[in-house]
Amino acid sequence: MVDYSPALMTDMYEYTMLDAALRDGTANRRCVFEVYTRHLPAGRRYGVVAGSGRILDALERFHLDDEDLRFLTDRRIVGADTIHWLEDFRFSGTIRGYREGEMFFPNSPILQVEGTFGECTLLETLVLSILNYDSAVASAASRMVSAAKDRPCMDMGGRRTNEWAAVAAARAAVVGGFQGTANLLAAQLYGLKAIGTAAHCFTLVHDGEEDAFRSQIEALGRDTTLLVDTYNIEEAVRTAVRVAGPQLGGVRIDSGDLAALAQRVRNQLDALGATSTRITVTNDLDEYALAALQTAPVDSYGIGTQLVTGSGAPTCAMVYKLTERQGADGTMQPVAKKSKDKASIPGRKLAYRSYEYSLADGEHVVSGSERSLAAFAPQSDWRDLLVTYMDHGVADSTRQGHDAIVRAHEHRAKALEELPITAQSLMRGDPAIPTTVHLL
Amino acid sequence: MVDYSPALMTDMYEYTMLDAALRDGTANRRCVFEVYTRHLPAGRRYGVVAGSGRILDALERFHLDDEDLRFLTDRRIVGADTIHWLEDFRFSGTIRGYREGEMFFPNSPILQVEGTFGECTLLETLVLSILNYDSAVASAASRMVSAAKDRPCMDMGGRRTNEWAAVAAARAAVVGGFQGTANLLAAQLYGLKAIGTAAHCFTLVHDGEEDAFRSQIEALGRDTTLLVDTYNIEEAVRTAVRVAGPQLGGVRIDSGDLAALAQRVRNQLDALGATSTRITVTNDLDEYALAALQTAPVDSYGIGTQLVTGSGAPTCAMVYKLTERQGADGTMQPVAKKSKDKASIPGRKLAYRSYEYSLADGEHVVSGSERSLAAFAPQSDWRDLLVTYMDHGVADSTRQGHDAIVRAHEHRAKALEELPITAQSLMRGDPAIPTTVHLL
Repeated sequence: MVDYSPALMTDMYEYTMLDAALRDGTANRRCVFEVYTRHLPAGRRYGVVAGSGRILDALERFHLDDEDLRFLTDRRIVGADTIHWLEDFRFSGTIRGYREGEMFFPNSPILQVEGTFGECTLLETLVLSILNYDSAVASAASRMVSAAKDRPCMDMGGRRTNEWAAVAAARAAVVGGFQGTANLLAAQLYGLKAIGTAAHCFTLVHDGEEDAFRSQIEALGRDTTLLVDTYNIEEAVRTAVRVAGPQLGGVRIDSGDLAALAQRVRNQLDALGATSTRITVTNDLDEYALAALQTAPVDSYGIGTQLVTGSGAPTCAMVYKLTERQGADGTMQPVAKKSKDKASIPGRKLAYRSYEYSLADGEHVVSGSERSLAAFAPQSDWRDLLVTYMDHGVADSTRQGHDAIVRAHEHRAKALEELPITAQSLMRGDPAIPTTVHLL
Repeated sequence: MVDYSPALMTDMYEYTMLDAALRDGTANRRCVFEVYTRHLPAGRRYGVVAGSGRILDALERFHLDDEDLRFLTDRRIVGADTIHWLEDFRFSGTIRGYREGEMFFPNSPILQVEGTFGECTLLETLVLSILNYDSAVASAASRMVSAAKDRPCMDMGGRRTNEWAAVAAARAAVVGGFQGTANLLAAQLYGLKAIGTAAHCFTLVHDGEEDAFRSQIEALGRDTTLLVDTYNIEEAVRTAVRVAGPQLGGVRIDSGDLAALAQRVRNQLDALGATSTRITVTNDLDEYALAALQTAPVDSYGIGTQLVTGSGAPTCAMVYKLTERQGADGTMQPVAKKSKDKASIPGRKLAYRSYEYSLADGEHVVSGSERSLAAFAPQSDWRDLLVTYMDHGVADSTRQGHDAIVRAHEHRAKALEELPITAQSLMRGDPAIPTTVHLL
């Protein structure tokens, strides 16, 4: 059972700004906020968007109950008028953005939130938390999946990140190209494929390895995967095949020199007639380790720490910035801060990907007023990158739930294939395609 | 409103192992599992324990409802007998461990979980998720607090990590020495001090900076903190003092060369008579940036990304290992896996810190059988590091909630003071004190 509201998963200043803006009237000004990142993590060629569907899930739950309102009152965070405004708050704006599974680059307008200042400002932290973490995981996952070539990658990272982050990570991993997860809550909430083997403690709690293997096979059948590195691998593989027969589903190796061990275990399994028994390896794998295992006889990978921590880039540095707002005269006006090194590009954006011979060769971010953008005609073969997630408070439910994740998983594969092959290089370098900002 | 059960925040194999162990009888064997890390993040001198109290919170909620049981059945993860066993599952074991706020080192037995194999194995992922993330944040926080000397550090990192991780991070930051958080849910759940200023969008939504400052002061009073780097800092400071008077509470700078800007802003504020107006700086601060700001006239720090991502070490690599279990003859026996590079130390542990002239000079991990440990006499000045969190299913409620966090915050300061001064060095090096393993 999972029941909660994300309304207080936010920084205090969003409520104090709301309070002040309600008093002075600016809370009702129409606004466009945009999520983007100024740069990719050092050396990365692209990022993968994930989490946008979870924002729709969160907005469904976003409401303040009496306890929350009392908290805001007791702590003197907002005044009585704001409490009244919050009583039946529901976001009624419009959200557009990149598809989940889409590649993004510096300045890509990953999400656009349009509504009143009051309602949009309340979402800042929540939107960023979801996109920054989920996209970090999906971006790392995508590199790992490329490095693993056709071998399935499975998420086993739950234990190395916050317990809720683990659930989000499992979903983001599948968006990023993974096939399944060990995390049961993610499997339950999102209909993902759940996978698992056994832990060393299962062997250790038994009086001997053979007892443990027999028990696991009895409970799970011969197609299960036995963990063979608790004591001596060679002996364990012999025992495993003796107990399960050559129909044994798989073995897992979780320590040592994985490439060398996989080869020896493959040889041993083949010699024992277990030619179709699969080998899964785990143990702090990252995309570089996977690349190094390409010639080893491995059938699938269980990936943990480096997946859920974004393989060196645990967040995407995405920001949520006001780019257009209604002025005192009622017209929409582009705005931007001028802070040193952190200046933003004024005006709402359109976004397209351009192609040459079916290969992506550029990201185009077009900025301007509502009117100039309406008149803008992209080149005929440019792909429009923005889709609608929510229209005046009504979510596009096809962007939530299991099917949306499957589509995102498929979109990521297609969109990556469109990029120059350097995108899949693990060497540090520039973004795979340049971003051009067109100021209308 | 927050209501959920963490029972499925776990890897699938824990339920399949439970299923097999219930069939073969080993699920009822008494076991001791221990949480420890084999190494600190590269170059770190110590880690800080955080999250143990959250484990007690999680165990209170840990139950499976009909939907969960149906999920486990429909996915064929466990059989009917296991479903029956799970129907009114409640952890009834004993949990000991290091205090929150305590320093830990390689092989420190940070948490000990004792109970039947069945009940202990279900907790593995949840316990590790909580301790690995919370301790990573507390460990980073502690280094930042040292580097900030007496200046208060505030958590503003929620937007750069998963939305629930943000709540845990705020709590862990305070355990690690921070004074407060911007995160409202953390403030609500744990009674933490909530802090905040304003965002650039608040200035931008107004027709001019002066309008924004006036509105904020009207809503929040003169003691508020105004953000002064949306356009031109010098002009903004002038406007801020003109609008609020010299009683203005504070200004925040979020970009540029913070040390130089803080000095210029201080000079300007003093010249305007605003000598007690505080300066808060933010902008991707980490412990090294804080150390570099020591001589700048800064009054407090808002710290985000690097806090919630553990400043380069987003997880602690803690593992949960079976170290002792009942054998077929009913006696408790030390056990350990022998995996290459990942071998574990058999037997349950005691843990002490030794001193010379009131300064800690060693961590002592004593391993043996139940009997030999009962007979072990530590040196008279050794400090016993293990406290009881739960006794046969009954939580020590003084280790949960707001007061426990305050005590952990205070304990961290005291325990750090006991360590050699090199512990507070930001230079890479060995753990501040060596760990000696005594095998009885």
